[in-house]
Amino acid sequence: MRYSQLFGKTSKSVPADAESVNAKFLTQGGFVSKQMAGVYNFLPLGLRVLSKIQKIIREEMNDMGGQEILMPALTQEESYLTTGRESMEILFKTEIVGGGKAMLNPTHEEVVTPLVQSHAFSYRDLPMAVYQIQNKFRNEPRAKSGLLRGREFNMKDMYSFHLDEADLNKFYDQAIASYFRIYERLGLGKSQVVLTYASGGSFSRYSHEFQAISEVGEDTIFLCKKCNIAVNKEIIDEHNFCPSCESVDLTPSKAIEVGNIFKLRTRFSEAFKFNYQDKDGKNNLVEMGCYGMGPSRVMGTLVEIFHDEKGIIWPTAVAPFDVHLISLGKENDEVTAAAEKLYSTLKEQEIDVLFDDRGNSSAGEKLNDADLIGIPVRILLSKKTLAQNGAEFKRRNEKSSKIIALGEVVQNIRG
Amino acid sequence: MRYSQLFGKTSKSVPADAESVNAKFLTQGGFVSKQMAGVYNFLPLGLRVLSKIQKIIREEMNDMGGQEILMPALTQEESYLTTGRESMEILFKTEIVGGGKAMLNPTHEEVVTPLVQSHAFSYRDLPMAVYQIQNKFRNEPRAKSGLLRGREFNMKDMYSFHLDEADLNKFYDQAIASYFRIYERLGLGKSQVVLTYASGGSFSRYSHEFQAISEVGEDTIFLCKKCNIAVNKEIIDEHNFCPSCESVDLTPSKAIEVGNIFKLRTRFSEAFKFNYQDKDGKNNLVEMGCYGMGPSRVMGTLVEIFHDEKGIIWPTAVAPFDVHLISLGKENDEVTAAAEKLYSTLKEQEIDVLFDDRGNSSAGEKLNDADLIGIPVRILLSKKTLAQNGAEFKRRNEKSSKIIALGEVVQNIRG
Repeated sequence: MRYSQLFGKTSKSVPADAESVNAKFLTQGGFVSKQMAGVYNFLPLGLRVLSKIQKIIREEMNDMGGQEILMPALTQEESYLTTGRESMEILFKTEIVGGGKAMLNPTHEEVVTPLVQSHAFSYRDLPMAVYQIQNKFRNEPRAKSGLLRGREFNMKDMYSFHLDEADLNKFYDQAIASYFRIYERLGLGKSQVVLTYASGGSFSRYSHEFQAISEVGEDTIFLCKKCNIAVNKEIIDEHNFCPSCESVDLTPSKAIEVGNIFKLRTRFSEAFKFNYQDKDGKNNLVEMGCYGMGPSRVMGTLVEIFHDEKGIIWPTAVAPFDVHLISLGKENDEVTAAAEKLYSTLKEQEIDVLFDDRGNSSAGEKLNDADLIGIPVRILLSKKTLAQNGAEFKRRNEKSSKIIALGEVVQNIRG
Repeated sequence: MRYSQLFGKTSKSVPADAESVNAKFLTQGGFVSKQMAGVYNFLPLGLRVLSKIQKIIREEMNDMGGQEILMPALTQEESYLTTGRESMEILFKTEIVGGGKAMLNPTHEEVVTPLVQSHAFSYRDLPMAVYQIQNKFRNEPRAKSGLLRGREFNMKDMYSFHLDEADLNKFYDQAIASYFRIYERLGLGKSQVVLTYASGGSFSRYSHEFQAISEVGEDTIFLCKKCNIAVNKEIIDEHNFCPSCESVDLTPSKAIEVGNIFKLRTRFSEAFKFNYQDKDGKNNLVEMGCYGMGPSRVMGTLVEIFHDEKGIIWPTAVAPFDVHLISLGKENDEVTAAAEKLYSTLKEQEIDVLFDDRGNSSAGEKLNDADLIGIPVRILLSKKTLAQNGAEFKRRNEKSSKIIALGEVVQNIRG
C-alpha cells in the first residue's frame, strides 16, 4: 500500500479529549477516528490491526471446538423480561415501529440460550460451544479511555453448554489455556497477563478475569507471586489471601482487563427452562459457561503496553503491515527508482509493505510518522544508503539501525 | 465438518411465519434462525455462506481501489440534524445515559462525509473511495420476506469523493462494471441481473438499481430487451420509454433488487460544508457517489432464484461446503470405515466437506437433508456402491447420479 494513497494519515494534533495513550496514538496515527464518546470509526490501518486480532482469536476458538455463529444486536424486550435483566442500566433501548421495544444487546445470554435450546434436541447434542465476533452496545455513563471502555465495541463471546458441572469445569479449564495461547500470540506473554479471581455472582464461587499488568490500568489487582495468579478488588475486600495457596503475601498492581470468563451454571438455563432428558428420563438443567474477549479493547491495551514517547510499537502478529518502506527520493531521481523497485520486490515476496512514497514530505516527517504508526520493521532508502548500495534497516523496538545490502533486504526482514 | 457435531441441523417444521422461500429453506436447512421480525441469527452454515459472499464483494471493492473501513452503528443525533434527515421514519433512536440521543445508522452518509472531510486535507487527497461491510438498522414497518427486508441486515456500502462531476461519472461507470463482476461470481449472470434506471432524487437524473429477475420479486421492472436495461416503476410512471434508446417496447418483469448505486453529487458535501480549494484557490463542493449491496439480501435472493421443491441449490462460489459426503454405514461396518477414509482424503486435499456421519438417521433422511442444504456435489457411500468399489456422485443441479471409482472421487469433484 502506498502511503500517499492511504485514507487516514497521521495528524499532529492531539485529540482534545484524548485522556489515554491509546486514544492519542491511535487517533494521531490514523488508526481510528472518534464518532462520539465511546464510539469509534476504524480507518484502514486500524481495521487491519483489529482484523488480525480477530483472526487469532477465531483460530483458537475453532481449535477448542467452538462453532462460529452471528447473533444480532437487536433483541426483543421479552427476552430480557424472562431473565429479569431488562432493568440493567447499561441497556440501550429503542422503540419498534408498530409497537414494542428492542434492546441493543450488551451481551448475548438472552439470545444464545433460547437459540441453542431450540436447536439442541437431546442430550446427545451436548456439550456444545458457539461463539461470535460482533459489536456490543453498552450505555456507559463514563465512556472514556479510547478503545478501553466503549459504548459500541467489538467482542468475541463464546458460550458453552454442558450436561453437568464436571463437564463445564473441564471446558472452562481448556478455555483458560486457550486464552493464554491467544495472549501469547498477540505478544502478551505469561508474565504480562495474569489469571485473576473475581466474584462469581450468585451461582459460582469465582469468575476469572485476565488482567494485563500495566501502570495505566484502571483496575488494581493483588498478585500472589508464588502461584502466579491474582485476585481483584472485590475478592480482596472479602478475604485477603490467595485462593490457591492461601498466602497473605499479595502485591497490588495496576492492570487492564483483557478477558473475562464466567461459569453461568444454570442462571440462564433456568430462566429459559432449558433442560434435557438424560438416559434415565430425568430432566436436568443445562450447565452454561461464557467466555468474553474484546478485540477492540485488546487493541487499545496493546497500545497502552507497547509504546514509547514517539508512538506505537506493534507486536509483529497484529501490526498493520510487516514493513514500513521509506523513500527519501525526489521525483524521478535514482532513490525513487530504487525504492519503487524494492517496493515491487517486497510485494512479489508477499511481504505486506506500507510504502511512504510521498514526494512532498520531509525526512523528519516520514521518520516521525513511522515511529508513530509503529510497524515492526523500517527500511529506508536515501542517497546516503544508495551510495553504499544499501538500505537502512531498523526495528521499531530497537534503538540502533544498520545498513544492509539491497539484495539482502528480504532475508533481513524474514530473519 | 461432521454433520453429527454441527450446530444448526435441519428441521422439518416450516416456520409459521415463513412467508418466503428463502426464510423457509434457510430456516429448515439450519442456516438462520429468526430472532424477531426482520432480525436473524446466522448459524454456522449460514455464516459460511454470508462470509463467502462478503469475501467476493470485498475483493472486487479492493480491486476498484476502495479502502475498507468500519463505521459504527451508533451516531449522535446532531449529524442527522445537519442533513435534515432526523425525521426519517426508518430511524431507530435511543437515549444516551447522561443526555442526548443516538441514531442507529440505516445508511452512513452522515458518518462518512465528515469522516472523509476531516481526513482529506487538500484536493490532492481526492478522488477517494472507502467502503465497509457492516450491519445496518431500519425500523421497517413491514419487516418480512426472510433476509430480503430486515430491520437489522448486513450491508456493503461504498462512498466515493471526487473533485468534479466528470470524475464521479467515470468512477460510477466503473462501479457498474464491478457490480456485474460480483453478480457473475455469485452465480448471477448478465441474463439474470439487469441494470435498472430509478429516480435520482433532487440532484441526479437517475440512480441505478441492480435487479435480479425472479418471479417472486417484490419489484416490477420494465425491460428494454434491445438495450438489456430496465426502468423501475417510478420511472415508467414518469415516461414510458427506454432512457437509452427511447423505445416504448418495454416488457414488465418481477425482480428482486440486489444493489443500488446513486450519484449523491453535493447533497451531503453541502450539508457538511465539505469543499476543497483547487489549484486556483477557488472553493468547490466535493462530488459524492454511494454504492450499496447487501450480502444478507443477496444470500436470500440466491435462495429465491436457485432452489427446487426439495431445497436450495447453492452456486459453487458461495456454497457452505464444496461436498456433502454421506455414509449409509452402521457402526463399525465396512461402509463406515470407507467413508471415514474418504473423509480424511478429501480433507487432506483441502476440499471443504460436510460429512453426514450420523449413525441414527435413515438413508431417506440423509438424502432429503442433502437436497435441502443444497451443497453442489453429493458423494454417497453404501454397501451397494462399495460392492462396485465405488461411490455415488451426484450434482445438486442435475437429476442423474453415477457410480465412480473410489480412487477417482477427488478428480470428479474437481472436474
